[in-house]
Amino acid sequence: MLKIAIVGYGNVGRAAREAVDAAPDMVLVQVAEAPGVPIPEDLKDIWVTDLRDVRADAALLCLPSRLCPDAAETLLSMGINTVDAFDIHGEIPAVKARLDAVAKVHGTAAVLSAGWDPGTDSLLRALFEAMAPRGISYTDFGPGMSMGHSVVAKSKAGVKNALSMTMPVGAGVHRRMVYVELADGAALADVTAAIKSDPYFSHDETHVIPVADIGALQDVGHGVRMTRKGVSGDTHNQLFEFSMRINNPALTSQVMAGCARAAVRQTPGCYTMIELPVVDLLPGERDEWVKKLV
Amino acid sequence: MLKIAIVGYGNVGRAAREAVDAAPDMVLVQVAEAPGVPIPEDLKDIWVTDLRDVRADAALLCLPSRLCPDAAETLLSMGINTVDAFDIHGEIPAVKARLDAVAKVHGTAAVLSAGWDPGTDSLLRALFEAMAPRGISYTDFGPGMSMGHSVVAKSKAGVKNALSMTMPVGAGVHRRMVYVELADGAALADVTAAIKSDPYFSHDETHVIPVADIGALQDVGHGVRMTRKGVSGDTHNQLFEFSMRINNPALTSQVMAGCARAAVRQTPGCYTMIELPVVDLLPGERDEWVKKLV
Repeated sequence: MLKIAIVGYGNVGRAAREAVDAAPDMVLVQVAEAPGVPIPEDLKDIWVTDLRDVRADAALLCLPSRLCPDAAETLLSMGINTVDAFDIHGEIPAVKARLDAVAKVHGTAAVLSAGWDPGTDSLLRALFEAMAPRGISYTDFGPGMSMGHSVVAKSKAGVKNALSMTMPVGAGVHRRMVYVELADGAALADVTAAIKSDPYFSHDETHVIPVADIGALQDVGHGVRMTRKGVSGDTHNQLFEFSMRINNPALTSQVMAGCARAAVRQTPGCYTMIELPVVDLLPGERDEWVKKLV
Repeated sequence: MLKIAIVGYGNVGRAAREAVDAAPDMVLVQVAEAPGVPIPEDLKDIWVTDLRDVRADAALLCLPSRLCPDAAETLLSMGINTVDAFDIHGEIPAVKARLDAVAKVHGTAAVLSAGWDPGTDSLLRALFEAMAPRGISYTDFGPGMSMGHSVVAKSKAGVKNALSMTMPVGAGVHRRMVYVELADGAALADVTAAIKSDPYFSHDETHVIPVADIGALQDVGHGVRMTRKGVSGDTHNQLFEFSMRINNPALTSQVMAGCARAAVRQTPGCYTMIELPVVDLLPGERDEWVKKLV
């Protein structure tokens, strides 16, 4: 049995617990959270509040992206394999180089950006590229909530709470539907102008809609549609499409759990999902999956 | 540059030549065919008729499946990495064990069943399994020609030529549309009865349709639709779908060309596509793809 620690017990951490409990080859040995966070009664025996107390084969870092690199570095240097869903695309190469160096020194492995985008979508983009090396791929997200855009909208003066939905227009273009709870005395026109002029929104068609209660709108469903039209060899018009409709934290944490298996099966270093054999994400024997799936 | 030999110059072999020519990191150094096959003028300098004369980094085995294991064994033992699109699903584990042993002795690598099914579809089935470990996957083929079913239909008394189309009904069920050119004096009713009672057709809804000229119907387009509805962690109703519409030999040979890169990048042994990092199918540097696709 693979001993798993969950680091961070928010939406993704709670879903990760379900993924670990459902896995035939994993046992949850610890949950790590910051001091002061209320401890669920049924987790009190395995709850820790200091990363340095973590003892496990692999740790699932269910933390905000910006906190992942430091936590991974600490754990990797303690001999613990790590998995995170770090999603700041532009920073992935630098974080990968940093974790790769630490992992190699300490004989551990990290899987970086192991969610659905980056993550399984990245793997599909790579596969599509291999199937048709010339062509154009599009990734259309949603409908689903964007955490990043919601936080930016919420930060504007006059906004008490906000939720930004990403709506797919097609060909990688997105519309933003921003639902806002206005503070007392705030004018919708001012809030709308502030949101629309922010760089997060200024390039997309954006609608700002006042609502009484953001809580009544919350739903962690999300989706994606990826398409590629391209050329295999000298043959044009090869058409590929992938789509999914999913519960976001449930899928993210399920992918992370699979990548914990892959982490312990790799040689030391830091890997993204396009660098892992997919069979390594699955429990049990490689030969059984070859027989069943190939 | 990776030196590539193409073994077998039928539909897939000709498409493989286009894939190799289009690759920035490959050069076609040989084409091997049986003695007696007409030699295309522009290939006469690199044409060989004996496998033992092949000299290359990797060989693409564009042969009927039943000829692949022996050819792969010969080449692997000569120090040449191999890729094939062996598609007899039930025999894959045994062939894999056999090629794995030979490859390890001779320090070479084989990629087995590197087409689209088995091949990229297998990889997607494995990915879907990792994303939702509980649930049901369906693979629906077509519309497209089935070579195996066409050969069986053609073997019946009274059939001059035949083409069997696979039509997707859904949930992994298929309908067979069998177009036949009848021999002089043959009765459609007899031919229909013979085809429908063959084990290849008896489990599926089958229609037999007489036509004047099979050649006028031939088209190497094919397609697939794969779906999975399953459970991530404890969350049900996770929905995944992949579909494609493709030229069959063009995609098969493109995947094979990518797997030639992967073969030279693996440690000795025999691999199916679920055991390969997808990035190894792509040309150039791993870090560039991480930056571009993850």
